[in-house]
Amino acid sequence: MPIVTLLTDFGSRDAYVSQVKAVILSECPNVTLIDISHEVKKFSIREGAFLLASATPYFPKGTIHLAVVDPGVGGVRRGLVIESRNALYVGPDNGLLSLAANRDGVVNAYCIESRFARPSLTSVFHGRDLFAPVAGKLASGMAPNMVGEKTSRYAHIDLPQAKAEGDRIQCEVIHIDEFGNVITNVTSDALEKFSADVRVVFRGRSRLAKHSRAYTDAGIGELVALVGSHGFLELGINQGNAALKLGARVGDKLKMRPG
Amino acid sequence: MPIVTLLTDFGSRDAYVSQVKAVILSECPNVTLIDISHEVKKFSIREGAFLLASATPYFPKGTIHLAVVDPGVGGVRRGLVIESRNALYVGPDNGLLSLAANRDGVVNAYCIESRFARPSLTSVFHGRDLFAPVAGKLASGMAPNMVGEKTSRYAHIDLPQAKAEGDRIQCEVIHIDEFGNVITNVTSDALEKFSADVRVVFRGRSRLAKHSRAYTDAGIGELVALVGSHGFLELGINQGNAALKLGARVGDKLKMRPG
Amino acid sequence: MPIVTLLTDFGSRDAYVSQVKAVILSECPNVTLIDISHEVKKFSIREGAFLLASATPYFPKGTIHLAVVDPGVGGVRRGLVIESRNALYVGPDNGLLSLAANRDGVVNAYCIESRFARPSLTSVFHGRDLFAPVAGKLASGMAPNMVGEKTSRYAHIDLPQAKAEGDRIQCEVIHIDEFGNVITNVTSDALEKFSADVRVVFRGRSRLAKHSRAYTDAGIGELVALVGSHGFLELGINQGNAALKLGARVGDKLKMRPG
Repeated sequence: MPIVTLLTDFGSRDAYVSQVKAVILSECPNVTLIDISHEVKKFSIREGAFLLASATPYFPKGTIHLAVVDPGVGGVRRGLVIESRNALYVGPDNGLLSLAANRDGVVNAYCIESRFARPSLTSVFHGRDLFAPVAGKLASGMAPNMVGEKTSRYAHIDLPQAKAEGDRIQCEVIHIDEFGNVITNVTSDALEKFSADVRVVFRGRSRLAKHSRAYTDAGIGELVALVGSHGFLELGINQGNAALKLGARVGDKLKMRPG
Repeated sequence: MPIVTLLTDFGSRDAYVSQVKAVILSECPNVTLIDISHEVKKFSIREGAFLLASATPYFPKGTIHLAVVDPGVGGVRRGLVIESRNALYVGPDNGLLSLAANRDGVVNAYCIESRFARPSLTSVFHGRDLFAPVAGKLASGMAPNMVGEKTSRYAHIDLPQAKAEGDRIQCEVIHIDEFGNVITNVTSDALEKFSADVRVVFRGRSRLAKHSRAYTDAGIGELVALVGSHGFLELGINQGNAALKLGARVGDKLKMRPG
Repeated sequence: MPIVTLLTDFGSRDAYVSQVKAVILSECPNVTLIDISHEVKKFSIREGAFLLASATPYFPKGTIHLAVVDPGVGGVRRGLVIESRNALYVGPDNGLLSLAANRDGVVNAYCIESRFARPSLTSVFHGRDLFAPVAGKLASGMAPNMVGEKTSRYAHIDLPQAKAEGDRIQCEVIHIDEFGNVITNVTSDALEKFSADVRVVFRGRSRLAKHSRAYTDAGIGELVALVGSHGFLELGINQGNAALKLGARVGDKLKMRPG
């Protein structure tokens, strides 16, 4: 059974997500539909790209990922199908798909021809009117090169890179999850520099975070630095909310050094 | 594979929706379950009816729609199955189903006999105890005329009608979506009157909205009037929240005239 | 088709739930995945246990329930599979599974061996890295006794018991649902003592609740006491929010006597 995942900024109150699913089911009745998230911050291509790239490596080979965070809908941006080593990505050409697809290894990319749109194509909801029919047809077995012309140029989003100088790292908050864990762009190998605790400097204030393996290595309420489930250095609090305590937000810059 | 959709005001925190799904699966193991929304405003039959009618036209023929916004549960209101040209509707006889069913074209309606209830029928949760078993049996192939006596009288909900006088329109806000788009009851053909911009009068204040095809036709933050994805005139803001900016709420009256 | 349900405190914004589903699908492509709730209060094993036990009785025999509210992840707590008369439970050994499993009747319990973990097992996300592969393999037909050694000792959570003295009952709020219904630990047979109305004493204030069969037995805004859909005495308000009106929270103590 083909799998189609969905990631949008539509929220869960309106009927929009169900309209998209209905169109996919009309094309491919035996599809398995899996929601990644519909709570992406409205119009935030960056957050959508991050969440999509977080989820896609865990899906079986051949999964089709439909992603729609689309502030440019109805304008000049194109529709895109990216074929990567293990998956197909369908959505707007605004960078949303690129982070996930690039990590997996891009094989080909195609511009979606408008003839795949539903007869009543609107200029406000391509998720339902154009991308859903394409995702449904791909799930039904249509080859990706049928959707339109091959293209080698499409919008890219990259995560900012952390900078190491000696044993000091300048980094950035790239995500804050619902537990309040503060996910940075420091990779797991960089954390190995810190044999003992980590000193975190943020907004002129310096704090010691316990270099840990698990949240439970620290006492309840204690700040820890560990490699989180995304594979990045993450600041957390055992049974607490680190983002609230630190006042950290996505995009904030931090400095780290041995404690 | 039969499709059953669900629309309720149960929210997503409690186990209620899963109880309903469990009962349906017990009747029909190979069903495809699709959530339309569980975030309908508590007890708002009107919002539920609007969202249901927004979603159902996109589903394949034969889909069964289970909808439960049911402030009268345990009282005198009946349970209903409505057979429309392309779908079956199951839920309370309080108007919730009628808007969607009427748009599709009603074929027949039936009162649900209480013998279809689960053995432990409560007076507080017919969604789980009565409507779910019926939806499950219909998904398993039971004919709709088996659920009970045919009826020609059931509760109706209609959207309020916009009034046009010359080139002026008196209309009403019928929905505000999670993007803050203000959906009115002005139909797309009425918008054609406005060749150029639209002057919107609301709470004694007059604003110019750019008559657009897509949100992106306007600058970021600019008010637009366009035919939205529901097929109605909608006020929106390119990458912004029009409802917040206007202070508009469902039921508010607006006047529109050429700008 | 095997059914796997999911209950977590992960929320719906992050990609965590979809990662868990992806891992299950990788093990068992034809699984039916049903969300019970992902909005359990963060780290609240007690609320998770209550919601899980609310949902599981309605599922078909053979359903696999994966539950992850796991503040002790990465520490000494074990992973558990509990086999009950009608279901399998997978999750941390912290009491989360026990309420539901005990109600159904426990047959056996097994400690999960770490060899079932994904190759990249983290110390922060066993839901994805350990419990999901096990749930997927069980859905694919693996016998529960294959996961590890049998155990007779595991963490239990019990609901507090209401105390009756003559016609007076001392009880506790065990759940507040999204409608604001106040669910107590008074069982339905105890309510039979109250032939007429119920006097509820809470925070030094005494209120009369109409002893009802359905919310609609009372006027709009009126306080009712009835046997709710969980099978417990519940305080509600017809089309209103009883918890807000009473200021009640989970864990609050109440006294009830004939009105």
